Amino acid sequence: MRIEDLNWMDVEAYLKHEDRLILVLGACEQHGYLSLLTDVKIPMALADAASERTGVLVAPPLNFGVSPYFLTYSGTISLRASTLLSVVEDVVRSVYGQGFRRILILNGHGGNATVSPLLVELANNLPGLHLAWYAWWLSHSVETLAARHDLKPAHASWMEAFPFTRVAELPPGAKTPPSYRGVLNAEQTRQAYGDGVFAGDYLAGDDVMSELFNVCLEDVLHLLSFE
Amino acid sequence: MRIEDLNWMDVEAYLKHEDRLILVLGACEQHGYLSLLTDVKIPMALADAASERTGVLVAPPLNFGVSPYFLTYSGTISLRASTLLSVVEDVVRSVYGQGFRRILILNGHGGNATVSPLLVELANNLPGLHLAWYAWWLSHSVETLAARHDLKPAHASWMEAFPFTRVAELPPGAKTPPSYRGVLNAEQTRQAYGDGVFAGDYLAGDDVMSELFNVCLEDVLHLLSFE
Amino acid sequence: MRIEDLNWMDVEAYLKHEDRLILVLGACEQHGYLSLLTDVKIPMALADAASERTGVLVAPPLNFGVSPYFLTYSGTISLRASTLLSVVEDVVRSVYGQGFRRILILNGHGGNATVSPLLVELANNLPGLHLAWYAWWLSHSVETLAARHDLKPAHASWMEAFPFTRVAELPPGAKTPPSYRGVLNAEQTRQAYGDGVFAGDYLAGDDVMSELFNVCLEDVLHLLSFE
Amino acid sequence: MRIEDLNWMDVEAYLKHEDRLILVLGACEQHGYLSLLTDVKIPMALADAASERTGVLVAPPLNFGVSPYFLTYSGTISLRASTLLSVVEDVVRSVYGQGFRRILILNGHGGNATVSPLLVELANNLPGLHLAWYAWWLSHSVETLAARHDLKPAHASWMEAFPFTRVAELPPGAKTPPSYRGVLNAEQTRQAYGDGVFAGDYLAGDDVMSELFNVCLEDVLHLLSFE
Amino acid sequence: MRIEDLNWMDVEAYLKHEDRLILVLGACEQHGYLSLLTDVKIPMALADAASERTGVLVAPPLNFGVSPYFLTYSGTISLRASTLLSVVEDVVRSVYGQGFRRILILNGHGGNATVSPLLVELANNLPGLHLAWYAWWLSHSVETLAARHDLKPAHASWMEAFPFTRVAELPPGAKTPPSYRGVLNAEQTRQAYGDGVFAGDYLAGDDVMSELFNVCLEDVLHLLSFE
Amino acid sequence: MRIEDLNWMDVEAYLKHEDRLILVLGACEQHGYLSLLTDVKIPMALADAASERTGVLVAPPLNFGVSPYFLTYSGTISLRASTLLSVVEDVVRSVYGQGFRRILILNGHGGNATVSPLLVELANNLPGLHLAWYAWWLSHSVETLAARHDLKPAHASWMEAFPFTRVAELPPGAKTPPSYRGVLNAEQTRQAYGDGVFAGDYLAGDDVMSELFNVCLEDVLHLLSFE
Repeated sequence: MRIEDLNWMDVEAYLKHEDRLILVLGACEQHGYLSLLTDVKIPMALADAASERTGVLVAPPLNFGVSPYFLTYSGTISLRASTLLSVVEDVVRSVYGQGFRRILILNGHGGNATVSPLLVELANNLPGLHLAWYAWWLSHSVETLAARHDLKPAHASWMEAFPFTRVAELPPGAKTPPSYRGVLNAEQTRQAYGDGVFAGDYLAGDDVMSELFNVCLEDVLHLLSFE
Repeated sequence: MRIEDLNWMDVEAYLKHEDRLILVLGACEQHGYLSLLTDVKIPMALADAASERTGVLVAPPLNFGVSPYFLTYSGTISLRASTLLSVVEDVVRSVYGQGFRRILILNGHGGNATVSPLLVELANNLPGLHLAWYAWWLSHSVETLAARHDLKPAHASWMEAFPFTRVAELPPGAKTPPSYRGVLNAEQTRQAYGDGVFAGDYLAGDDVMSELFNVCLEDVLHLLSFE
Repeated sequence: MRIEDLNWMDVEAYLKHEDRLILVLGACEQHGYLSLLTDVKIPMALADAASERTGVLVAPPLNFGVSPYFLTYSGTISLRASTLLSVVEDVVRSVYGQGFRRILILNGHGGNATVSPLLVELANNLPGLHLAWYAWWLSHSVETLAARHDLKPAHASWMEAFPFTRVAELPPGAKTPPSYRGVLNAEQTRQAYGDGVFAGDYLAGDDVMSELFNVCLEDVLHLLSFE
Repeated sequence: MRIEDLNWMDVEAYLKHEDRLILVLGACEQHGYLSLLTDVKIPMALADAASERTGVLVAPPLNFGVSPYFLTYSGTISLRASTLLSVVEDVVRSVYGQGFRRILILNGHGGNATVSPLLVELANNLPGLHLAWYAWWLSHSVETLAARHDLKPAHASWMEAFPFTRVAELPPGAKTPPSYRGVLNAEQTRQAYGDGVFAGDYLAGDDVMSELFNVCLEDVLHLLSFE
Repeated sequence: MRIEDLNWMDVEAYLKHEDRLILVLGACEQHGYLSLLTDVKIPMALADAASERTGVLVAPPLNFGVSPYFLTYSGTISLRASTLLSVVEDVVRSVYGQGFRRILILNGHGGNATVSPLLVELANNLPGLHLAWYAWWLSHSVETLAARHDLKPAHASWMEAFPFTRVAELPPGAKTPPSYRGVLNAEQTRQAYGDGVFAGDYLAGDDVMSELFNVCLEDVLHLLSFE
Repeated sequence: MRIEDLNWMDVEAYLKHEDRLILVLGACEQHGYLSLLTDVKIPMALADAASERTGVLVAPPLNFGVSPYFLTYSGTISLRASTLLSVVEDVVRSVYGQGFRRILILNGHGGNATVSPLLVELANNLPGLHLAWYAWWLSHSVETLAARHDLKPAHASWMEAFPFTRVAELPPGAKTPPSYRGVLNAEQTRQAYGDGVFAGDYLAGDDVMSELFNVCLEDVLHLLSFE
């Protein structure tokens, strides 16, 4: 159940018996051969699936994230860190004002972690607010799954190559991660990473991807219990 | 053609022969009986239709706008004016850096006009950048059409009630606009506007809506010529 | 009655029986052959006249507005949109803290409309605050008057050519508006508009100007009733 | 010669042979029995007099300054320090862009000194920009004059009681300064200072005031030589 | 070699043959029984040791970090995320302007990772700038060492209990980490963590701590090669 | 007693019977032949001495200040004025939240005076907060002492040449201050001031320096009484 499919009366009725919300933070940034909106599509898919099971409402995603390292890759749209802080504060304050109290942020993009301290600042200032944060690719569940299948989790690799994020053929085989040290700027990132995939297999089997999705979904459902 | 259906290599190829982009600014705010995302859905529909005819790329929409007056209506998510300024600056600078030079902003929401001066500031600072702005509901085309059909254009009324923005039954008849003066805060807005529709018929015929869409699309195509 | 002619004890006495204030937002920007401070002089003249009739206090004007498009015209001083937001917030909060509750903002300059959403944010946050906004040249009254006299309202044209804004001879005749599309930057604006007048007659008769002033004054008096 | 009496063509002609500008920073704040705009009126009077002698152009004053300590005195309008920084940056950048290179800031208010470091930042970033700053009441000239007449310089006392800043009768005699330590907030300031005058004689003779004005004017003329 | 032991001539001489700098970001926040400045003391100790071996200059540390979750623990001083972004930008730009080109940031505190995207933004904008970042407690070296000694790395536990960070007796034994989910605010953090230690042994042997220090120092030396 | 030598339990115990804190604002900037951290070292020495006599706690110093005029001198690290405002606000709010109510700011650097109005804003907004500010080199005590010894107080001269700030031999004799007018940018400052000392004797006798320290310490102790 997405906000876009409801009008305000529907949301008001919802708030009479429920105070949870799923908010997706994403990015519009290079993902190798995959969709530039991969970091929105994955958490939105999880959000929709979790919503189907629980009835928790899903807010419209923020389609842009903090991706300064990929600005040399065409189609990448990056917010400054300070901008993301402002957006997240405004969104949380808006829905808090209407009665939402338990908000699960499904984050699709690493650079957005810059907002972590802001979430605590908001929780300090807004009584009764409970926030949870889930970055699926960093979860213990995914780490375990990847190890079990002998796959390496990495940006734009197999692990993000869901049927719904693929927009082109993927190369066969695996990529050897480049070696570097220090903070790369956008030009150096492109030199180092070429096609934009960080490391590992370009593709995994459908069963692996299905399993991956499911373990993440379990995590989301668990977090949605806010216990 | 939306960025979400492409990868970065596709966009890079696109930029070899084209430098135009459509950017949608929307809002997540009460629209009476219509979808809370009406202000995204309408300009996105126009963007998709214009893209189909011209091949111009469509960026992911900004799903939140500046809607402080509707914060008492559940589901409304409002950015501060200063936040929107930051987001728009970051988005424009990102794509300018990759070679986009002619950007048509399809705005779906009145409160977002607060960014108008920023667009000039950006045009002052980024050589060769051409920006155009289209707020469909304020266009001469729509004014003419509404007059011809003896309909009154107003927030959340018939004029936004496209098949793709309707999420509930609409009441019959028309609404008499409340009378007020001065700046209303969110509580006063709700008292004044009740169901959130500002004025006029709740619904128009399919042919009117189709005509409405088409005159706006013509405007968009015209603006996309950047002449 | 202007604040500059009073000391704080006078204002404190005033606040014992009155809570209204007129605040003028202006601009220092090119107005063709007219004074660079035209956008301050007109609303201040209205403010003074309204104050004489009602006794409502007039705050010192903000002499700078948001005018990035005119920065190539010498003497134009432009604030960033974000700066104007900060100034208006500070001014309103200052006088609210002392007991002013009904504030009429007489705006003299189009670019300042960028603060509209901020006014709602302030009204949301400051209990009992009533704000009203008047942009005289956009009023129904002026539209009607211009139509009646077959004159076209436009920046720096006859409509701003009051005796008190004229600092030079005005050319005879009328100006044909240039045609353009999209957002002009400051250089393009100067190329398009040359002497800075947008369109229409350079001058109207004294009786028209007097009538113009009076219809605007009526509007101001009406708004000052805050009903 | 004030900008308000010119149009942009006049300023453009001026810039052909001259690159100096006088900018007045003031305040709208309690000044005891004197005008709330005393801190604008005094530097504007100096600016006008200096302009008459040198032909240097005078920009419109900023009518608001940083006065948080006086917010309990009705009619005081205070900008946050951060707001003033933004305004001054915008004003200086605007006129620098048009060719002004030597700008004398006549400051009328102590709290505005918060912008001092910003002036250096601007001078670091804008090649060829020369800024000068004059806070008349802190000048060596005024100190000497006050000592010679056995008068104590203090906020809102004789030293600001020019004919053009007086809006009420002044009490006879002198005020004993209250004793305090530490940073006073606005409530404590009012408790400590009562009528708002800080210390010393309420009034000096016309000849003293005339002499005071003249020594300050000499300073201004000296600074305008930018040597 | 610390900047505090040099004057500007010394640094100017240094810059003739060297362009590296070590910058310490710390925190003033609760560390259980350990010094409130633990997050400064540890990276400064590493910086001093690395400087002794390489001659690379050490800048004064930033003594405050982003620690909103610990604000209920007395003595914790927390910057907003946006503030830290500003400080780090200013520091890096200052030394870049003087010729420093390779800057190793030794970070002592997890909350400071919020600046990561800013570092890329700076590297995008400042040609020739190389930044490196080291958060010692997250390093592979420390992970390995902890595993080898069967110790669990955690905030304020044995791993930060160096002789130079201890300011009180440490309790015997180990702490069982509390279980929680979601974002804790400062009050919940205190309820959950009590004495402020997150988990694991309070203390390790001197030899372990010495080994810990040395593996981190090796990392730092390696990063200082900027290869 | 410095915060760095305590853990949070110690500070909590302290706050049971005491609510005072000393906060040092400094700078990392050229001081001629003296340490680049002179503006931290002097107020910290005063803070430690005052703490020893009174038991008042000393917070970690802010090692960076607002020094844009010295950015051409290697080793100078300057915060923008707006950044310093944010840092000081965050620090004061953090400790206020824990119960500190009387905070003496020992400022070591002239450029930091830009925060003065912010201190009043904080005192306006945080009930019961008492702030005091001491800039030792501007004190009446130091002025008197300098006059008595026929010494001229000036940046980086004898007056800052304490045994603990000297890091190199000092030249003999005295420096004639350069003459200049207007706001110097960083390049002009270096041209004008050469070695960075502003004026006067490079060195004074140990007894003078000891006396200087003591009169300042007396001031600090007096301010710490907050009476």
